[in-house]
Amino acid sequence: MPGRVAYFGPAGTFTEEAALRYAPHGELVPRPTIAAVAAAVVAGEAQEGVVPIENSLEGSVTDTLDLLIHQSNLFIQRELVLPIVHCLLVRPGAREEDIRVIYSHPQALGQCRDYLEHRFPQASAMAAMSTAAAAEQVQKSDHPTAAAIGTARAAEIYGLSVLARGIQDNPANVTRFVVLAHTDHPPTGDDKTSLCFSFSNDTPGLLYAALGEFARRGINLAKVESRPTKQSLGQYIFLIDLHGHREDPEIKEAIRRLQAQASTLKIFGSYPRYVASNG
Amino acid sequence: MPGRVAYFGPAGTFTEEAALRYAPHGELVPRPTIAAVAAAVVAGEAQEGVVPIENSLEGSVTDTLDLLIHQSNLFIQRELVLPIVHCLLVRPGAREEDIRVIYSHPQALGQCRDYLEHRFPQASAMAAMSTAAAAEQVQKSDHPTAAAIGTARAAEIYGLSVLARGIQDNPANVTRFVVLAHTDHPPTGDDKTSLCFSFSNDTPGLLYAALGEFARRGINLAKVESRPTKQSLGQYIFLIDLHGHREDPEIKEAIRRLQAQASTLKIFGSYPRYVASNG
Repeated sequence: MPGRVAYFGPAGTFTEEAALRYAPHGELVPRPTIAAVAAAVVAGEAQEGVVPIENSLEGSVTDTLDLLIHQSNLFIQRELVLPIVHCLLVRPGAREEDIRVIYSHPQALGQCRDYLEHRFPQASAMAAMSTAAAAEQVQKSDHPTAAAIGTARAAEIYGLSVLARGIQDNPANVTRFVVLAHTDHPPTGDDKTSLCFSFSNDTPGLLYAALGEFARRGINLAKVESRPTKQSLGQYIFLIDLHGHREDPEIKEAIRRLQAQASTLKIFGSYPRYVASNG
Repeated sequence: MPGRVAYFGPAGTFTEEAALRYAPHGELVPRPTIAAVAAAVVAGEAQEGVVPIENSLEGSVTDTLDLLIHQSNLFIQRELVLPIVHCLLVRPGAREEDIRVIYSHPQALGQCRDYLEHRFPQASAMAAMSTAAAAEQVQKSDHPTAAAIGTARAAEIYGLSVLARGIQDNPANVTRFVVLAHTDHPPTGDDKTSLCFSFSNDTPGLLYAALGEFARRGINLAKVESRPTKQSLGQYIFLIDLHGHREDPEIKEAIRRLQAQASTLKIFGSYPRYVASNG
C-alpha cells in the first residue's frame, strides 16, 4: 500500500491523474519539477514518485530520461499508461461564442491546433506554464471570454465547467508514466527492464554488437532510443526497454556481456509490464 | 545561391538566426509552424525551409521528425549547428533590481532555471508562446519591471537591451537545424544520410538484423532513435543518421537490403556533414 506519493504537479495535471490512479488512497504531494519529485523520494518525504516518461505524440520526456541517466539512484518500480483527454474549460455559464482567449501550455495548444482553428478562429492562444496554471488563470479572470485547455480534474479544482471533452486533434494521445522508488519490482512473469549504456568511442558496429547480446538470446526490445550526452551533440547514450526481468538468467547474462563492452551501463529497474485492462 | 528561404518564425527566434547564417543575402520568410515552413516550400513560395531538428539538452524536435516521417516529400539538403545563447532582455534603462516578471517559452525558462533562482528569486516566471513573443510582451509593457529570455536579435527587433548574455544553466546548449528542399545534396566526400524504417511486427532481432546491414559494411551510425508511431505507444519507427552518401555503393546496397526486411523505409536525404569551423 502506498503511503506518501510525490508527483510532478501542480494538482490538476495529467501526472496528478496518473498518481491518483496509481494510489487512490495514498497521500499525494505535488512537486514543481521532475527533479524535485525524485529529490522528495530520496529525502524520504515520499515513498514513491510519479513522473511522465513518454508521450505517443511528443516522444520522450527528456527531463525524466536525464534524471534516470545522470542523477538519481532511484529505480523504476512501475509503469502506467494513461490516455490524454484534453478538455476545454470555461467559467460556469460561459458559452462557446463568448470565448476570445484560450490559455494552455504551448504543447497542449499544439495538440489541439486543428480544433482551435476550426472552432475558435477568432480566439487568441495564450501560453501558460502548465495546463493547471491555465485553468487557474481562467478562474482568476473576471470575464467569461477566457478558456483553458486542461484536464477534467482541473475543472473541479478551479471551479470551471467542461465545455468540450477530447478536443485533441489525434485521438491516439497516450502518456506513459513511471513510479520511482528506492527499489524496483520483483519478477511477476510479464516484466520490462529499462537500462542505458554508452561507449567511449564511436567505432562502427558497437551499438550493433550490443544489441546482438539481446537478439541472440531471443530477448525482445520494446524500445531503443539515443539521447545526446550533455557534453556534445554527436555523442549519444542509448536507452533500451526490453521484455523480461533483470533476474531472468538470459537477461542477466546479456547485461553482463554488454557491461564488458560499454563504457557506462546503468539499470533503471525491472517492473511489471503495463496491460491496458489493469487500469 | 538561396532565393526565398522560409523559416520557423517569428523573427527573433533561434531558427531565424540559423536561417540568417545559412542565407545572409536571401529573402527570409517566417512561417508560424514547422508544417507551414514545409508547406511554403512545397507550394513554391520559398525554395528552401529552415527548421530545428535536435537540441543537445531537449532531444529531438518531434514536429520536424513527424513531418519528415509522415507528410513531406521534401529532402534534407543541409544541416547547421548553432550554439543556443539565451539573453536576458529588458526595456532600455531597466536595471537588474527592477525586474519582477520574466517572460519566455517554458522550455527557455527551464533551461535558465538555476540562473533565475539565484539572481531573481523574487521574480515570477511567465509563459510565452515563443522567445520572440516574450520580447514583444516586454516591449509592449509600460513598466521597467518586465524582462524576457530570448536572442540578442530579438532585442534589436523589439528595441530592448541585453542585460545579460549566455544565461543558460548548461553551456553545452546547441541546436541542429536542417534545410528542407525539393532535392537533397550531391556527394561531397564528407556526408550524412538520414532515413527511417519500421517493421510490421515486433519479432525479436529485427532491428538488430537491420543495423547489421550497416555494421557489416563498416558504415558508422551517427544516431539511432525510435519514435512511437502515432497509432500506438508500443510500435516504433526507427530513425537513423549514418556517415556517408546514399549514392555510395556500400550504403546503397545496405539500404536496398534493409528495404527488403522493413515494412516501410524512407530516405530523408544525404547532405554535407556540418563542421563547426564552417560557421
